[in-house]
Amino acid sequence: MEARRVAVVGASERPDAPSGFVLRNLLACDFSGTVWPVHPSASTVYGWPAVPRLADLPDRPDAVVIAVPAATAVQVVGEAASLGIPGAVVLASGFAETGAAGRALQQALTDAARSGEMALCGPNCLGLHVPATGLALFSSRLVPGMRQGPVAVISHSGATAIALANSGRLGVSHVVSAGNAAVTDVADYLGYFAGQDNVRVVALLLEKVADPAAFALAMAQAHRSGLRVVALRTGRSVRGARTTAAHTGALAGSNEAASAFLHRHGVLEVTDYDELLETAVLLSTVRGRRTGGGIAALGVSGGGLAHCADLAADAGVGFADLAPTTRAELDRLLPPFARADNPLDMTGVVFGEPQRYEQALTRLAADPSVSMLVAVQDVPLGLDAEGAREYSGIAQAIARYRAQGDKPVAVLSLLAGGPHPEVRDILQAADVPVLQCGRAGWAALGHLLRTRTLRLVEPAPWIRQPAWVRRLADGPALTEREAKNFLRDHGIPTTREWLAPDPDSAVRAAQALGWPVVLKIESPDIAHKTEAGGVQLNVRDEAEVRAAFERLVASARRFAPEARIAGVLVQEMVSGGVEVLVGLARHPPFGLGLTVGPGGVFVELTGGHALDLLPLDVDAARELIETTPLHRLLAGYRGGPVSDAAVLCELMQGLSRIGLAYEPYLQAVDLNPVSVLSQGRGVRVLDALIVRHIDEVPAA
Amino acid sequence: MEARRVAVVGASERPDAPSGFVLRNLLACDFSGTVWPVHPSASTVYGWPAVPRLADLPDRPDAVVIAVPAATAVQVVGEAASLGIPGAVVLASGFAETGAAGRALQQALTDAARSGEMALCGPNCLGLHVPATGLALFSSRLVPGMRQGPVAVISHSGATAIALANSGRLGVSHVVSAGNAAVTDVADYLGYFAGQDNVRVVALLLEKVADPAAFALAMAQAHRSGLRVVALRTGRSVRGARTTAAHTGALAGSNEAASAFLHRHGVLEVTDYDELLETAVLLSTVRGRRTGGGIAALGVSGGGLAHCADLAADAGVGFADLAPTTRAELDRLLPPFARADNPLDMTGVVFGEPQRYEQALTRLAADPSVSMLVAVQDVPLGLDAEGAREYSGIAQAIARYRAQGDKPVAVLSLLAGGPHPEVRDILQAADVPVLQCGRAGWAALGHLLRTRTLRLVEPAPWIRQPAWVRRLADGPALTEREAKNFLRDHGIPTTREWLAPDPDSAVRAAQALGWPVVLKIESPDIAHKTEAGGVQLNVRDEAEVRAAFERLVASARRFAPEARIAGVLVQEMVSGGVEVLVGLARHPPFGLGLTVGPGGVFVELTGGHALDLLPLDVDAARELIETTPLHRLLAGYRGGPVSDAAVLCELMQGLSRIGLAYEPYLQAVDLNPVSVLSQGRGVRVLDALIVRHIDEVPAA
Repeated sequence: MEARRVAVVGASERPDAPSGFVLRNLLACDFSGTVWPVHPSASTVYGWPAVPRLADLPDRPDAVVIAVPAATAVQVVGEAASLGIPGAVVLASGFAETGAAGRALQQALTDAARSGEMALCGPNCLGLHVPATGLALFSSRLVPGMRQGPVAVISHSGATAIALANSGRLGVSHVVSAGNAAVTDVADYLGYFAGQDNVRVVALLLEKVADPAAFALAMAQAHRSGLRVVALRTGRSVRGARTTAAHTGALAGSNEAASAFLHRHGVLEVTDYDELLETAVLLSTVRGRRTGGGIAALGVSGGGLAHCADLAADAGVGFADLAPTTRAELDRLLPPFARADNPLDMTGVVFGEPQRYEQALTRLAADPSVSMLVAVQDVPLGLDAEGAREYSGIAQAIARYRAQGDKPVAVLSLLAGGPHPEVRDILQAADVPVLQCGRAGWAALGHLLRTRTLRLVEPAPWIRQPAWVRRLADGPALTEREAKNFLRDHGIPTTREWLAPDPDSAVRAAQALGWPVVLKIESPDIAHKTEAGGVQLNVRDEAEVRAAFERLVASARRFAPEARIAGVLVQEMVSGGVEVLVGLARHPPFGLGLTVGPGGVFVELTGGHALDLLPLDVDAARELIETTPLHRLLAGYRGGPVSDAAVLCELMQGLSRIGLAYEPYLQAVDLNPVSVLSQGRGVRVLDALIVRHIDEVPAA
Repeated sequence: MEARRVAVVGASERPDAPSGFVLRNLLACDFSGTVWPVHPSASTVYGWPAVPRLADLPDRPDAVVIAVPAATAVQVVGEAASLGIPGAVVLASGFAETGAAGRALQQALTDAARSGEMALCGPNCLGLHVPATGLALFSSRLVPGMRQGPVAVISHSGATAIALANSGRLGVSHVVSAGNAAVTDVADYLGYFAGQDNVRVVALLLEKVADPAAFALAMAQAHRSGLRVVALRTGRSVRGARTTAAHTGALAGSNEAASAFLHRHGVLEVTDYDELLETAVLLSTVRGRRTGGGIAALGVSGGGLAHCADLAADAGVGFADLAPTTRAELDRLLPPFARADNPLDMTGVVFGEPQRYEQALTRLAADPSVSMLVAVQDVPLGLDAEGAREYSGIAQAIARYRAQGDKPVAVLSLLAGGPHPEVRDILQAADVPVLQCGRAGWAALGHLLRTRTLRLVEPAPWIRQPAWVRRLADGPALTEREAKNFLRDHGIPTTREWLAPDPDSAVRAAQALGWPVVLKIESPDIAHKTEAGGVQLNVRDEAEVRAAFERLVASARRFAPEARIAGVLVQEMVSGGVEVLVGLARHPPFGLGLTVGPGGVFVELTGGHALDLLPLDVDAARELIETTPLHRLLAGYRGGPVSDAAVLCELMQGLSRIGLAYEPYLQAVDLNPVSVLSQGRGVRVLDALIVRHIDEVPAA
């Protein structure tokens, strides 16, 4: 990134040669350092004196661009490493993206680079570009006058990196096409940018998080230095849902795990290019002191402002409730037929008297409930310059407010591509953020306003119980009874129950537990008992116990003739609670995740489940529950009792500790349902399934 | 819209006069008809000879633009009506939008216009514009060279209408700023456009549906003539949730009713300006024969294409599964390191050999699984012309395919504002639809591909039962028992039950029904029995009946000391079914709506409920259930029994008939829960609440 002396291997003046793009870009961008083309025979390339081999260079370069095919590139990296060159860009395709042989070649490339502790951009990339120094190690056409500013763009995809950097919307500090990121990964670039004072925002197009630990460390550095990271993940839909052992996993695939990971580490995740751009524009240009209140929006189109209120609601952005004095003062700026409100329709009167617009901004900013001002102003691109100029009075009013006002202001054009350049130039010259696209613009405002303090969840100390380690590492699958024993041994409350080998024992067990009871088949070979006809609820007397015992065993025999049947589990029947699902499942490469949501028969209703990664403490558990509809059920329904949410949070914290302690042995844990009783009565796990790493994944 | 002779009342040459904009627009747009300014004293205005009053005109104008303040405008409309002038545009504000006095003034305006059977645009509007004839009765600056085409823009908001029409994206036939739409409403404009051969798409910004019946009629005309209507509703968030009697209404406010109404009548509803624009662009420009298959997408950026797959999944757009022969043929067009797939990454090879791009389009179009082609091509706006020209070979390849291929093709730029004009001009000249904004572009493709045949649900014949009409019109609120009697009398199955005035009767009732039973307090003054402690489930013997009877009465007395208590309802206990909510509620101005979703305790979980407007038949009921997670629960959960969904659909049809028959008397009907039993066993309404028009809305 800071190279002053650059060698280009495979240098060529052929118009379509990758190295040709690099060399022409270095010329066009006025790179002030030294360029050494390496060419087997030519004496000069694009006017620079060439040498036949890296070893023939007069001095050690800071970086080498390797513009030769894959197999040769590996050799050249080895050569560069042995010469002590600290950095390289490898452009060639034909590595891990092409299959097994390519993966081997990439490993060789990585080994070669690591042997010399080289930083290496690529392979299968377009390279990198630093506009401020003209360092244009980039094999696709660059615009020499790229707008400079505090935004670094990182993308696995080169075409996307250049499309964003060349959009004209961003002030760019660096462009990185990371390609396969075989050596230097996104986390490394993030860590580097965290140390650069001139970088304030990273716009990241992310195909995968290769090393979560390194990424988390880089984000911690970013937070310390005030660097904001906005990311768009690509390939969300093609990441097929990974088969997990229990239904928990199916509900929360690795897509949700990746989102949970980014959220946890303070990355702002967006859903499309426009939202990425608008968020990067806003975070990199907004100025002024925000307070804790809401947005105040104003404009000259009532319809546009009403639509903005809709979009703001969609994006979760709140509007300020203006003080009566503010409304009264604003009313004096409006024509008699208009009334002051938020959003504020200034009406066409401001075309003739734009000072009213500036006064309105000042008045709104003085209201303590207002955190930030948004001027909604469409100036159609189709207008001629004269037509657009009618709006310039408003733009100048906003610019004047920006110069003296203390609360931040942004301009938002509801139509993509707007506002008209005539107006945009005034605003950009005055350093006013200009957002485009209604939806993406409001989403960006939401990202800005939801800025939160990251809280590190410290993993609690844990101790593995040696007996349980042995049991999880070896032997047959755990039955429900064993799973519950395991949970109880780790402080998680379950139903009371006895294993009855015969009907007589079952009757005695039921009498001891109290009527009614639940009977369930107990077999290490039957994971999902309901499908096997292996569950009977609400068993109310001795005769029913005997009948149910025989029926359950017969059903299980029909369902799985080979299954080992240990007997029937007789359980206390817990009713009246809210049924909740709590589960653990593996989400590589992020480790175990915990899912919570409606349980029992409603587990398959979509939209109600949420996932976070371990560790969770009780506060993180509460936050997670609050993102699901459960928190309303738990708060009491139609005057019903308030549920014991606090104990549910303790259970989730306990399950998180179990996950960390026994991580090597666990595939999935599925507590479904957990009955959350009324406040003070706690929770009970009614059914539990533990799938170990060594178990076969059950069919259903 | 077709006026050739136009009078302008309040004509003025003042730069900021509303009439000045109109007159200057008529000049700038080369209106070929006659213009008569009306001015009290001037002899000419902008060169046209003026007269002092409408009555002094040499001939009857086809339309009059009334550019005077509100009160005067009402007089002028009366004068115009008496002269037999068929159309008017009233620009002034100060009508219904300002309060009670303004509403009265608007009524006077409406009466005046109706007295002469005048069409009237406005008041509180910017007017209308027909680019083809230069009829520019519009009081805001118009661009003389507005692109013409088959899209009519209608908006209550004038600023929005002009922003869309001037965006340069649409080929425009008409622009209508409908304002308060006091006389001529959106439905009238739609009906008019349905009769115009040169209008193919209406882009509609809708603040309210004033007259649903007229709107539905206009949409029927639109369908017959092939006119497509795309609508963005504004004010979704500010339409406060209307208080309805039962929880059904609270779950499905009038916002959902408006969406259901638009959907039912074939309007494509969008969520922001960008989606409105892209959908109008696509529907108005796409050509070629689509088949039933999926999309084939291609481009030169693997990252961009992966993102497109995500966006397509978000928008519900399916990709085609290419035939093996197609893949094999495509492989021959790709460099060795690339593999044919859909989406298809052509890689940078096509910059040098764009004919490969055209061949790929032709190959993809030949695959029977492909319905339509989408070329994903970002050409950054920031590029200079030389850089953009590198992409023009691809644009020309797409244009050549468009000229000879039979399946439709569209170009999509992921970045708003793209692609670069250098490339866009080639595509637009070749009549290729060019979409912008990834999200909005894919949403537009979804709207195009989901085109469906509208099915008219015929209201079934119904007969009101006179006794029930009397009961609904008069007397105290209906108890649960009466509500269920009402339902049974109309063929809807409920639990069996008896009203027991004392514990002895309750015991006899329970013995007759069979154990266990449910006991519920019966009072016309207690609508929500659970809050009152008035429900006891699972009562299993005589002793429990007696205890529960006393407890329920005592709880009810505590909850509502003044309540009249008729006794206790003893009900059969139905268990094992899937609990569903079915309800009716009023959704003005659309009439009654029917809601279905998860019932019982899960009624408050969000996202699971769906609303449609009456009438529903069994097919419409099934379609509605399929939009909710219920259909998965009803299809059998974890090997559990399949539920009797067919009988649930019959119940919904029956409730729809009840709604139509008793509409004047009903505020809301809340069947919650309805227990849907296993197939062949039907459904039972477990609890029912009927709130009449004359009832007070219960507190909870």
